[in-house]
Amino acid sequence: MIKILRIEESLFSENEKIANEVSSILKERKILSFNIMGAPGSGKTTFIEKTIEMLKNDFRFGIIEGDVEGKYDSEKLEKFNIPIVQINTGGACHLEANMVKNGILNLPLENIDILIVENIGNLICPAEFPIGIEKNIVVSSITEGEDKVEKYPLMFKISHICILNKIDLLPYIDFNVKKFEDELKRLSPQINFIKLSSKTGENFNQWIEFLRKLMKEKRS
Amino acid sequence: MIKILRIEESLFSENEKIANEVSSILKERKILSFNIMGAPGSGKTTFIEKTIEMLKNDFRFGIIEGDVEGKYDSEKLEKFNIPIVQINTGGACHLEANMVKNGILNLPLENIDILIVENIGNLICPAEFPIGIEKNIVVSSITEGEDKVEKYPLMFKISHICILNKIDLLPYIDFNVKKFEDELKRLSPQINFIKLSSKTGENFNQWIEFLRKLMKEKRS
Repeated sequence: MIKILRIEESLFSENEKIANEVSSILKERKILSFNIMGAPGSGKTTFIEKTIEMLKNDFRFGIIEGDVEGKYDSEKLEKFNIPIVQINTGGACHLEANMVKNGILNLPLENIDILIVENIGNLICPAEFPIGIEKNIVVSSITEGEDKVEKYPLMFKISHICILNKIDLLPYIDFNVKKFEDELKRLSPQINFIKLSSKTGENFNQWIEFLRKLMKEKRS
Repeated sequence: MIKILRIEESLFSENEKIANEVSSILKERKILSFNIMGAPGSGKTTFIEKTIEMLKNDFRFGIIEGDVEGKYDSEKLEKFNIPIVQINTGGACHLEANMVKNGILNLPLENIDILIVENIGNLICPAEFPIGIEKNIVVSSITEGEDKVEKYPLMFKISHICILNKIDLLPYIDFNVKKFEDELKRLSPQINFIKLSSKTGENFNQWIEFLRKLMKEKRS
């Protein structure tokens, strides 16, 4: 058992080393990058779609799509005619830094302002593996229940931004937004919290304005 | 890297050995057991709550609750005054057979007819680790989208029963039940498919009747 732990430790530190490499490459090119995480079905892909749709004339996007298998999400984004790299992890439940490094080396970085990485749908392991991306975003939808922050604290703790999605369904679901936000801010006082609906576009502008502000900071 | 693979292989086979032990212990005592899996927020705990509520006068339940940390779900089930073992995995995203073995050794098995194990909220790893429980159930809620079978095929392939949950929200969500069911049956023709709402109780009797049938078979 001790042997396994040692190997995992070395895996973690090797991962961190490569994450730093990824971070350096992106920093050097002044690319703003997002690591989108969340449970299966939380609406990560729709959130990305809507973001690109609203900003495609202002910024040049690049995408790394992580999936256990298949390329369903990549296919949804193909219509934008932007560079997309699909990563299939086989059985693994998270992206690792070496996968992301491989991904960015296959993207035309000189033509990208914003890199979006969609991580594997999972609230646990993606939080444990840094991948060198600047801003961690957790997408949590109101249909998942109010208790997600308490049950998966690490994910919310390492995130810079929390998107509470599917608020168009609030009239039909018992979900106390204030309770969720209080719990979130208690765990992670610095986190940026935005509630919206990627489907109807309700409140989506708040996220778009936030992203524009980040781009401005990046370029100044 | 080869070294890591060898260790993982031996971990898998050690896990399988213990899963067989768990299976033998439960078989010997004629305990019907369910391994409840699904994404975070798919409604696993509410499904279990409703099941116990409807059958608590007919059968004696025992529960093993798996969570990364905390005991929120156990606390929800405490009102039934039944034996519950809470397992916290630390960072791990699935239960393993040795955890479940440890769990059942801490339950009064002689007083249990039905053992329910709630696995970690995750559609990936729990499918990769057999835990010696008789019936695998995947709970998928309509709010997660129609594409879950295609994106997480292993989970649906190893499941004996698929519960499509939260059908009370069908009027408010774009979800084609037939498309989901067709995809499911194509992947796994033998699977038992039941759509219901654990919240409103709609169609829940279909599951209860199915469970009664399984108990009858077990005791005959």
